[in-house]
Amino acid sequence: MNNNIYFTPGPSELYPTVPQHLQEALAQKIGSISHRSKQFQEIYASAEAGLRQLLQLPDEYEVLFLSSATEIWERAVQNNVRRESFHLVNGSFSKRFYETAQELGREAQQHTVPFGQGFDTASIKVPASAELVALIQNETSSGACMPVEEINQFRAKSPAEALIYVDAVSSLPYPAFDYAKVDSVYFSVQKCFGLPAGLGVWLVNDRCMAKARELQELGLSTGSYHTLPSLLEKALSHQTVETPNVLNIYLLSKVLEDMNSKGIEAIRKETEAKAAKIYTYLESSSVFSPAVENPQHRSNTTIVANSTVPASEVNKHLAAFNMQVGSGYGKYKESQIRIANFPAHSPEQVDRLLEKLQDQFR
Amino acid sequence: MNNNIYFTPGPSELYPTVPQHLQEALAQKIGSISHRSKQFQEIYASAEAGLRQLLQLPDEYEVLFLSSATEIWERAVQNNVRRESFHLVNGSFSKRFYETAQELGREAQQHTVPFGQGFDTASIKVPASAELVALIQNETSSGACMPVEEINQFRAKSPAEALIYVDAVSSLPYPAFDYAKVDSVYFSVQKCFGLPAGLGVWLVNDRCMAKARELQELGLSTGSYHTLPSLLEKALSHQTVETPNVLNIYLLSKVLEDMNSKGIEAIRKETEAKAAKIYTYLESSSVFSPAVENPQHRSNTTIVANSTVPASEVNKHLAAFNMQVGSGYGKYKESQIRIANFPAHSPEQVDRLLEKLQDQFR
Repeated sequence: MNNNIYFTPGPSELYPTVPQHLQEALAQKIGSISHRSKQFQEIYASAEAGLRQLLQLPDEYEVLFLSSATEIWERAVQNNVRRESFHLVNGSFSKRFYETAQELGREAQQHTVPFGQGFDTASIKVPASAELVALIQNETSSGACMPVEEINQFRAKSPAEALIYVDAVSSLPYPAFDYAKVDSVYFSVQKCFGLPAGLGVWLVNDRCMAKARELQELGLSTGSYHTLPSLLEKALSHQTVETPNVLNIYLLSKVLEDMNSKGIEAIRKETEAKAAKIYTYLESSSVFSPAVENPQHRSNTTIVANSTVPASEVNKHLAAFNMQVGSGYGKYKESQIRIANFPAHSPEQVDRLLEKLQDQFR
Repeated sequence: MNNNIYFTPGPSELYPTVPQHLQEALAQKIGSISHRSKQFQEIYASAEAGLRQLLQLPDEYEVLFLSSATEIWERAVQNNVRRESFHLVNGSFSKRFYETAQELGREAQQHTVPFGQGFDTASIKVPASAELVALIQNETSSGACMPVEEINQFRAKSPAEALIYVDAVSSLPYPAFDYAKVDSVYFSVQKCFGLPAGLGVWLVNDRCMAKARELQELGLSTGSYHTLPSLLEKALSHQTVETPNVLNIYLLSKVLEDMNSKGIEAIRKETEAKAAKIYTYLESSSVFSPAVENPQHRSNTTIVANSTVPASEVNKHLAAFNMQVGSGYGKYKESQIRIANFPAHSPEQVDRLLEKLQDQFR
């Protein structure tokens, strides 16, 4: 029996209702049903409707299921960039999207700031030739986030035809996006939705679809089975091109019912209240300090702290109380800790984590 | 509660031990562990070792985890075909691999025989320019299969540099391949391994790896995150590039333990015994007849029959006994039935299926 509470930034703690939904999935034999059955179409439709309700997603957006956010980077470049993309880079994941564009032969441009910093939106110039502008609302590696009000400024700062992409892998459903001011938002279910890994969700509007068709009409390759038009064709009948991770789509549909019952406002308020407690502790501690200096750019869902004690020592202490935080990312593995503050983490669990940290690391 | 027994050709009946493994996964919180943890590496290593044992896989092969067999078609073309591939096509899935190569801008050649037929291997000429020869050991759409002895002839029939690919999506671990005579074999876990969908397994040898590196050295694009060299680099430390379907890799490792306990020979013999009973019934029935005429080309794992009664009527009859077979594929939806004969289907379940079919459809 594993009694750990995982404050790791994804995979992380499962949403508390997931075990019971998994039991129901077994009872209903969801693992055996055909992905071409009416039953699967209803599951897809339920997950889509649940997301539309939770996120207040406008009609011009489609909900597409892929295997990971990593895959979404590749499909975004293949389908929405003919020559040039522009990336805001301030950590390992935003950098990876930039590198993906390069690997696929595009002229990727980047605006970089040091790891752990947010962006000074006013000073950023989007190149006139950028076809895709890659913003990162929440950089999982560093804990830096971009306020929604700044994201909303990019439409006016960008070429009229440019598509605004937002990485919300480890923050949705927390940020209240204005979906009319961006064109695509994507996330992974193993972060804030508290599910097992193996599913990426790609929200794309009609402008992204039009761009993919434009590239196809020019005779350019947009991939094979996961082109946007192929994905859309199946999505319209609540199906996927390939045999998908049916079990995870089912679990997502169920967790979305639970989240909608709780209400997005309650989830957002609880997230903020827990984050405030965590940051208050980090600021008062002599061992830890928030890794992101500017409070405006501190993530409320993946909270990163510099640590004068090696991360492995922090986790050794926490292990005695069946808790675990994330170590720092890459070269910050021992010098930082990362605390996931997802909807799956109850206020009581966060209180207990802070209590046990405080006991040892004042 | 759903008490159906699914004889559908994938997703299908779960292997009987899967529910208990899922309970253990919940108890061990497998859905929360990091894909960069030692615990995950051990799960990957266990799944790999289990496959090596069950399939008697030689050392020069790597075991790679992707999201689906559909993805594997794309990655195979990107990594192993510079200009030209050659495909044996006798149904919807072999055709889809051929089309994937075309969509990715390759000059795909095909040797086609009608739906439901096997190939006359002796008469097939592999083009001298073929870099990848796509064989289909088991065509899930039509129930036609290719005997292993015929697959083994292709090395000698093909250019020395050509890579021999084998689609065993809905047959492994049943066929006893000579892995030295081919270069890549791939399958999906929701077929004969009796798992929930969302994981494709790609077995590739060192020749496939060398070809991918050759294309990269020529400056050609082999994709982004799922190039063979990227997949290999992570696989060598029992990791994946992206956050994978950790739960399914865990379940696969557990089902492989069960299958290895039973033994591959027992699984093969049981598969053949069940298949023989099914074909004997189909041949004796006035309603059904095996869709593949040549007994040598009839699959033992996905058994397809022409039906004078619409497939939906057959399933209406079976529903009263909590059983379901697959309908025909595509335009054969009502005129054929497909019966999955996977390791998850016990001899007793097959007996009961045949008994209930026989009651109504003599």
